[in-house]
Amino acid sequence: MRAVEWVEDHLRLLDQTKIPQKVQFLEIKTVDQLIDAIVSLAVRGAPALGATGAYGIVTAIDQGKKENWSESELEKQIARIRDARPTAVNLAWGADKAKEELKNGRDAVLALAHKIAKEDEAANKATGKLGADWLMNKISRRPLRLLTHCNTGMLATTAWGTAFGVIRELHERGIVENVYADETRPLLQGSRLTAWELVQNKIPHLVLADGAAASTILRGDVDAALIGADRIAANGDTANKIGSLGVALACQAAGIPFMVVAPQSTVDLTTHSGEEIEIELRDESEILNFNGVRVAPLESRGYNPAFDVTPAKYISAIVTELGVIDVSKGETPATRKQGK
Amino acid sequence: MRAVEWVEDHLRLLDQTKIPQKVQFLEIKTVDQLIDAIVSLAVRGAPALGATGAYGIVTAIDQGKKENWSESELEKQIARIRDARPTAVNLAWGADKAKEELKNGRDAVLALAHKIAKEDEAANKATGKLGADWLMNKISRRPLRLLTHCNTGMLATTAWGTAFGVIRELHERGIVENVYADETRPLLQGSRLTAWELVQNKIPHLVLADGAAASTILRGDVDAALIGADRIAANGDTANKIGSLGVALACQAAGIPFMVVAPQSTVDLTTHSGEEIEIELRDESEILNFNGVRVAPLESRGYNPAFDVTPAKYISAIVTELGVIDVSKGETPATRKQGK
Repeated sequence: MRAVEWVEDHLRLLDQTKIPQKVQFLEIKTVDQLIDAIVSLAVRGAPALGATGAYGIVTAIDQGKKENWSESELEKQIARIRDARPTAVNLAWGADKAKEELKNGRDAVLALAHKIAKEDEAANKATGKLGADWLMNKISRRPLRLLTHCNTGMLATTAWGTAFGVIRELHERGIVENVYADETRPLLQGSRLTAWELVQNKIPHLVLADGAAASTILRGDVDAALIGADRIAANGDTANKIGSLGVALACQAAGIPFMVVAPQSTVDLTTHSGEEIEIELRDESEILNFNGVRVAPLESRGYNPAFDVTPAKYISAIVTELGVIDVSKGETPATRKQGK
Repeated sequence: MRAVEWVEDHLRLLDQTKIPQKVQFLEIKTVDQLIDAIVSLAVRGAPALGATGAYGIVTAIDQGKKENWSESELEKQIARIRDARPTAVNLAWGADKAKEELKNGRDAVLALAHKIAKEDEAANKATGKLGADWLMNKISRRPLRLLTHCNTGMLATTAWGTAFGVIRELHERGIVENVYADETRPLLQGSRLTAWELVQNKIPHLVLADGAAASTILRGDVDAALIGADRIAANGDTANKIGSLGVALACQAAGIPFMVVAPQSTVDLTTHSGEEIEIELRDESEILNFNGVRVAPLESRGYNPAFDVTPAKYISAIVTELGVIDVSKGETPATRKQGK
């Protein structure tokens, strides 16, 4: 099963709003359908959005052909896909890569999208091994008790996972005692999606409120925390799902590793620091309602930033398929890039 | 309106599980009804539980008289009330105070319970002024942007509030710009109860996910955070609603005050440090279900500690009706007590 897959003549997305109740797919044949899927978070996760961005250009080309779009109309529709969500760099990255290929025709764009998806899986697996090695070297306790926030598994990528990929790798090595999965309010990607993936992979786990992470960490019940990323700045500052920063602060206070795991495409060297990262503000209804039930007074307003930025000083290591950037030793994506 | 009130011949509790949808009262005439109300959190909040513990002894006496309980049966029922929840010291404190009065007859116990409720209100108001003075002295910015976690207002006390009492006092002084109310998972006391009280008091506010507090604080949008307490140890370590510790860590990182506000009855000098505080583990269903809808896979287990302990080193000040303990300057409840 894949979260993002091209099937015959169209893009098929696993509808993540239905997990864990139902495994159900969306058949995407128009740009409107695609943007709905992105905005409603039926497809989400930075790496999955990278592949979706690329495949989406093929969707736009195919729809344009059917509906006789002008070149400028096609450009406009591609820009809509590219900008459907602002924080994750991968969506724009995937769309831009695909757009460059446009001159070589529709099939070349599709081939590139396939390549991005396939490379994401391979990169994830390589990253998983690098991250697992680094943690095993850093932590002597066996088995390991890990904590993660939001969802970074197969659903968030194309097939394997980023932070979750490291957890899967450690589990395959037989040394995972337990994974604490933050439920990840407001949209519960932790309890709905990560817990579902932990069940699929038969990894022992406990779902907890986001607010319970800090005390669980400070009590000494966690050996390391791992998260994904939506954008990593040149200095190592990392945008990720709202609530990640709190996990990082607790790890810092407890003196345990806080690891960021992401494909290299998430690193954005044109963004110098976290201050330059635009944070998506989502609708207040995600906070004020639950499953159609209003949980706050009608007179109350909500504040719903979808991401936060963890300053590099609270990050132990950033792992991509190119290697481990030891942020705790002063390395940054920028210095690493120059060093290559 | 009062959360806890003796009306004619029985205890009347505002059913906090129904707020904000409905304002509805529970008429408590038996110990079973009382314990149900405490365990289901129809009545909650450390100071409110203090008064409830005392009134509950009268409920037990009255029920015992009707049902011809033996003395040992009455003792047993009083112990059930006293131990209905383990973390908040106030419930046991209120029950114990009332029990001491038992020798003077039922009406003396009721008079004592009234006194506890009345004194709680007066103490809250005095504490509100002390806390407001301290913050105004500490912070030069006007107006103030405050953040609070869980509910510490009229609902959590008998009439005024602890941390919320400081916020009300600052609002009456006309200097509150905005209150960020953490929604406070899993039971949403922030979005359901605090937001409702903020509406009642016409205080501008925004409800946010607990995970959004850290970045809101580190971004510089908050001038101080205020919480209540369920038990304060002699060294200043403070047990409060799960998620409080994360707020404290963020305040520490941002260099803004983190204030604990509670009645003196919450200070437990027989508990030397936070390590001795028993943390109530509540049912996993509070995490895994929402409003009757399962949000996690059926195979997943939940971890649901109701409280966490914030070490004194992350607390700026503890305010009770007796004064401000400047924890950031090394004062503790124990040294303060000796100094008196």
